[in-house]
Amino acid sequence: MRFTINRDRFVHDVQNVTKAVSSRTTIPILTGIKIVAHSEGITLTGSDSDISIETFIPIEEEGTEIVTIDEQGSIVLQARFFAEIVKKLPGDNIELIVQDQFATTIRSGSSVFNLNGLDPEEYPRLPQLEEDLLFRLPQDILKNVIRQTVFAVSTQETRPVLTGVNLETENSDLICTATDSHRLAMRKATIQKNDEGLVFSNVVIPGKSLNELSKIIEDNNDLIDVVVTENQVLFKMKNLLFFSRLLEGKYPVTKSMIPTQSKTTLRLKTKPFLQTLERALLLSREGKNNVINLKTIDSGLVEITSISPEVGKVTENIETDVQGEEMRISFNGKNIIDALKVIDSEEIDIVFTGAMSPFVIRPIDHDQYLHLFSPVRTY
Amino acid sequence: MRFTINRDRFVHDVQNVTKAVSSRTTIPILTGIKIVAHSEGITLTGSDSDISIETFIPIEEEGTEIVTIDEQGSIVLQARFFAEIVKKLPGDNIELIVQDQFATTIRSGSSVFNLNGLDPEEYPRLPQLEEDLLFRLPQDILKNVIRQTVFAVSTQETRPVLTGVNLETENSDLICTATDSHRLAMRKATIQKNDEGLVFSNVVIPGKSLNELSKIIEDNNDLIDVVVTENQVLFKMKNLLFFSRLLEGKYPVTKSMIPTQSKTTLRLKTKPFLQTLERALLLSREGKNNVINLKTIDSGLVEITSISPEVGKVTENIETDVQGEEMRISFNGKNIIDALKVIDSEEIDIVFTGAMSPFVIRPIDHDQYLHLFSPVRTY
Repeated sequence: MRFTINRDRFVHDVQNVTKAVSSRTTIPILTGIKIVAHSEGITLTGSDSDISIETFIPIEEEGTEIVTIDEQGSIVLQARFFAEIVKKLPGDNIELIVQDQFATTIRSGSSVFNLNGLDPEEYPRLPQLEEDLLFRLPQDILKNVIRQTVFAVSTQETRPVLTGVNLETENSDLICTATDSHRLAMRKATIQKNDEGLVFSNVVIPGKSLNELSKIIEDNNDLIDVVVTENQVLFKMKNLLFFSRLLEGKYPVTKSMIPTQSKTTLRLKTKPFLQTLERALLLSREGKNNVINLKTIDSGLVEITSISPEVGKVTENIETDVQGEEMRISFNGKNIIDALKVIDSEEIDIVFTGAMSPFVIRPIDHDQYLHLFSPVRTY
Repeated sequence: MRFTINRDRFVHDVQNVTKAVSSRTTIPILTGIKIVAHSEGITLTGSDSDISIETFIPIEEEGTEIVTIDEQGSIVLQARFFAEIVKKLPGDNIELIVQDQFATTIRSGSSVFNLNGLDPEEYPRLPQLEEDLLFRLPQDILKNVIRQTVFAVSTQETRPVLTGVNLETENSDLICTATDSHRLAMRKATIQKNDEGLVFSNVVIPGKSLNELSKIIEDNNDLIDVVVTENQVLFKMKNLLFFSRLLEGKYPVTKSMIPTQSKTTLRLKTKPFLQTLERALLLSREGKNNVINLKTIDSGLVEITSISPEVGKVTENIETDVQGEEMRISFNGKNIIDALKVIDSEEIDIVFTGAMSPFVIRPIDHDQYLHLFSPVRTY
């Protein structure tokens, strides 16, 4: 194998596939990235067997030559070293040559690296997915969907299925749900289907996969194709494929948990309320459970308090419009703060159904997402 | 005690004194910062007994009122909480009130914090230094002196005196030296003395103290007064005092270690040479000791190599002017990189005195600093 490639483009793609590589893998070949030079260009692959990323660099793009292939072939190189080396190389171009026994030479400017490569035949093949279940949505929307749900997944392995985000269809909407059983984030997005009859549910993508995907997808409205199979999901972008395994198990039915009535509703400005809770959390995170207390004082005033026996107490009054009954409730302030941080709307409604019942936070200007929280018992 | 203060100014000074506070202190009162309201303004103190910082906020500055004192007094408040609380308060001003039993109320905007304070009488007094040995230099020069020496102090407690930077006078110069016995950084600076006859040596300031001081001093040429006593040093800035204890023990005489002759001298551009070594270090840090090899090829070429048996080898040729004999030497690349990073000059000379003898790196355009390194034996 022998090729010369534009350094910046190569660095960009090497960094993308390296996101899938784990140093803690038990399969030695997966500490490497696979590089294939073929007639169309260069294909790079990285994988930790949960996530696999494949990118393609064409010979030429928009009239500019990116790669010159002198001899086709393939090699696997240690991802951690290789990514750092290409990033630090001095020239505008990089020449990569593989000789006998996978001995690899990388030249750029005055620099020559001789690296011990690995046998590309040992590298596992990526899954071939049948593209029956396919839908599309813009990249920036998907990025937002991930941001507004993935923070709420469980980090505990006691119920593995809760460490993922659940996807299901509802008419022409995709509904994404994440919950750790104390809080729940739900986000809807309109999708284009390849087949009007496309229906699925219980497609649970690991939160870790979505976090990595989110770093790769760009903030534009290019469409991304999503292929769903029994145990894999594939996100197809221009010149990049992102595969993730799906989580096994039955995702809980969450629709029925969302209260439809209201005893008390508060309308609040998102950012000032977030800041009030952050101040209260300074003390309550010293105790256990990050408990913050909320009490309606009259129809126009709410009091937020939190206490740490050792440090002291914080009290803050917020002017607001209180609709409905008096309310006195305690909650995990950290969970509410996490949710407020991903709400882009300026105002929210908090809808309470009772001091011991779950409550809902939703933006006032649309119904595409909501957050549900369990109260905390304090006695 | 009761006063109202401009929030931004208070936050700035609270953050400065908090730099001296350690959460790992064995003296409980030192986890707090001391706040004193007196007729002139507010004085804040933080200390971990090695470093103490005192700042002063005047009632009025340049015609603008900063503090209103309603009742003089003092209190000690938990530094970690207090610094975070004042940073997050919503109003432009902060009111602080101390009542019975050190119960402290902090009001700002809609926010009210009630904190448990500590008895200010328990807070240790700062040392009173006699100002016999006093010199001055501009703040930005001092900041550079610290940056160009402190990285080379030893991090090992086997020879505690080497964890500090040694100060001594030589005519109208201050000479600062740091060494971990494998490398040495020396920096001179011109100082103004209060007494022409001022002479001192073996004044060893802990590296940690200088790192904290460096974060506080600003990048302008305001003069800073330095007072040296038997076991303390005091840096006096406008409205801020920074005390540090000195390290005990005899600092090694380093002057005689610096070679005055040359067998081989290379002239190199600082930044490209730094980048070459960073690439070489990618492999050599995998082995032990970060060993990088340098070999003169002819009068105009030097070869840099490093090897990791598992990963591979890197070779780089640098065009340069080689004066003197052929040279083949190995060194700890990380140490050279650390030094090159703090050299502001575009070109350097490397002066070798033999393959097994210490060598010197110095900027070509002045003799205010130099770096000395031991070679590494490779066989």
